[in-house]
Amino acid sequence: MTLWDEIESQPEVLGDFLDHRWDEVLAIARWLTAVDYSYAVIAARGSSDNAARYAQYLWGAHNQLSVALAAPSLYTLLDSPPSLRGALVVGISQSGESPDLLAVLRSGRDQGRPTLAVTNAPTSPMAGIAERHLDLGAGPELAVAATKSYTCQLLALAALSVAMAADPVLEEALHALPGAVAGMLEEPRRTDHAVSALQMGDRCVVIGRGYNHSTAFEWALKITELTYVAAQAFSAADFRHGPIALTEPSLAVLAVATDGPVYADVAELLTDVRRRGAVVVAITDREDCPCDEAILLPKGTPEWLTPVTATVAAQVFTHRLALARGVDPDRPRGLTKVTKTE
Amino acid sequence: MTLWDEIESQPEVLGDFLDHRWDEVLAIARWLTAVDYSYAVIAARGSSDNAARYAQYLWGAHNQLSVALAAPSLYTLLDSPPSLRGALVVGISQSGESPDLLAVLRSGRDQGRPTLAVTNAPTSPMAGIAERHLDLGAGPELAVAATKSYTCQLLALAALSVAMAADPVLEEALHALPGAVAGMLEEPRRTDHAVSALQMGDRCVVIGRGYNHSTAFEWALKITELTYVAAQAFSAADFRHGPIALTEPSLAVLAVATDGPVYADVAELLTDVRRRGAVVVAITDREDCPCDEAILLPKGTPEWLTPVTATVAAQVFTHRLALARGVDPDRPRGLTKVTKTE
Repeated sequence: MTLWDEIESQPEVLGDFLDHRWDEVLAIARWLTAVDYSYAVIAARGSSDNAARYAQYLWGAHNQLSVALAAPSLYTLLDSPPSLRGALVVGISQSGESPDLLAVLRSGRDQGRPTLAVTNAPTSPMAGIAERHLDLGAGPELAVAATKSYTCQLLALAALSVAMAADPVLEEALHALPGAVAGMLEEPRRTDHAVSALQMGDRCVVIGRGYNHSTAFEWALKITELTYVAAQAFSAADFRHGPIALTEPSLAVLAVATDGPVYADVAELLTDVRRRGAVVVAITDREDCPCDEAILLPKGTPEWLTPVTATVAAQVFTHRLALARGVDPDRPRGLTKVTKTE
Repeated sequence: MTLWDEIESQPEVLGDFLDHRWDEVLAIARWLTAVDYSYAVIAARGSSDNAARYAQYLWGAHNQLSVALAAPSLYTLLDSPPSLRGALVVGISQSGESPDLLAVLRSGRDQGRPTLAVTNAPTSPMAGIAERHLDLGAGPELAVAATKSYTCQLLALAALSVAMAADPVLEEALHALPGAVAGMLEEPRRTDHAVSALQMGDRCVVIGRGYNHSTAFEWALKITELTYVAAQAFSAADFRHGPIALTEPSLAVLAVATDGPVYADVAELLTDVRRRGAVVVAITDREDCPCDEAILLPKGTPEWLTPVTATVAAQVFTHRLALARGVDPDRPRGLTKVTKTE
């Protein structure tokens, strides 16, 4: 299995999750609506932490749930776990093994809080510690860079949100997702225009906001891991609070600009950086998006699910970019599949 | 007032805060221990958001308070504020003006939650909205890049923590801080060795962990704003989960490595990246820190207060770096002092 094989397997993996895990999702959602908590603390690292960012927006907007991203070293090196009174404690991890994340979950259990693990490893320590476990069932992920496990995490977090909201319209949108993802994988070479439009040099900026704040971070992480370009992700708002000073002629700016309430804000920023000479490649479902090259998403995916389709577009782009730069995407330097941090 | 004048004014500004604001700090701490909440949500942008990261660790470790960093666009563009049941809502802002942060505070008030603003602008909208307001009294900050307002925010957050803990040993450490900061400002040229040791190119990596996770982000933001080098901050743990692939011969790695429970973890990472050829400059209080150039902090500052002394060291380094690169630190391109985002 190469990285590309795993990227291509995503429509099937996502479809399988919806076919085989829905009863489990419903059972966990029933539990989530029955137990008492007033906010969620999510512990995650790497790509899984980007999935946690997605949950922060989606669970916030659709389920009115305030989400905190944990600072795991408080639970390990500093050995001073904060009070988790009022918290639902969630761990998200492909392998379910990193000791710092286990420490957060364990502290949640010790403090008598409800705990949930979302992993791709049903026999992992994290699955064992948490009171409830949602298994992604994405199959072994062999490539170092996370792809199918990430989009499947997004789908799982979205499925939990939909099941808690118990809204049939939202549920229908979920079921259309594997088909939309399959569409994104046709003709991967069509992103080559976008790849060659950029003079990447060894740095670039990635912009997103709202639901796709997560996608900007995941795209940047993939570029960093697979092409060794220093890619920095920012929300459009955070970029304006300082880092916009980076903008100079030919700076490569990547953006996720999907139709919805944050679109105007992101588009305004893209217009501004283009005026200063930056070259913009946008993953977008708007033909009028201000950019030099557009990677078009299928119409009809509601904005809250575009992080899945946009991430697949970002994976394809990054895979092509790695090949164009002569880097082997199956052998990223200095990385191993499972990273265990304290 | 130039940026350098404001950097140099910090011992006085910090001393003034301790001399004139302590009664206010005690009054707010009494209120904080009297009102009911189980976690804190902090809304902030830019440097103030880095101060919020500091509070996440300090309030977590010393006051057992779980801290969430808000996603402001939920309250503005997405117009779907999450439930803040159980939350203390805190806004941190130099100017107290950014509309997205005001929206979070306003939602806190509307939901009947306790709200606290920490600003350098007592007549600002944020100070008006919040139930309680802590005025930094740092005097007008005219340079675009935040320096004295940032270290004063750190001090204010530390003072609230100390006052809540009501521990005289911790309080004594606070009062030694202005003197330690003054020591950091002697002989600014002594960092020039470190500046010239690096082949910065147009990117670098900044590492910190625990309390100085915040300092890594603030250092990276200052470098980005003032020298246009793309500086990316990571916790030592997050760096291992992917971005470590950036490491290559002569990559410039900056680090904050202070003595304490996270030191061994950071030092191990620095040893690792040096083995791969990276050049490391560390702000540290350990003479044995594995690095190519050390910027030494005074001994005797407890680790939880080193984000203040380390930030001043980072400011001096960055100011010298800007001059070495021929950039005017008083005129960062594309930035204005007050950034208002929705």
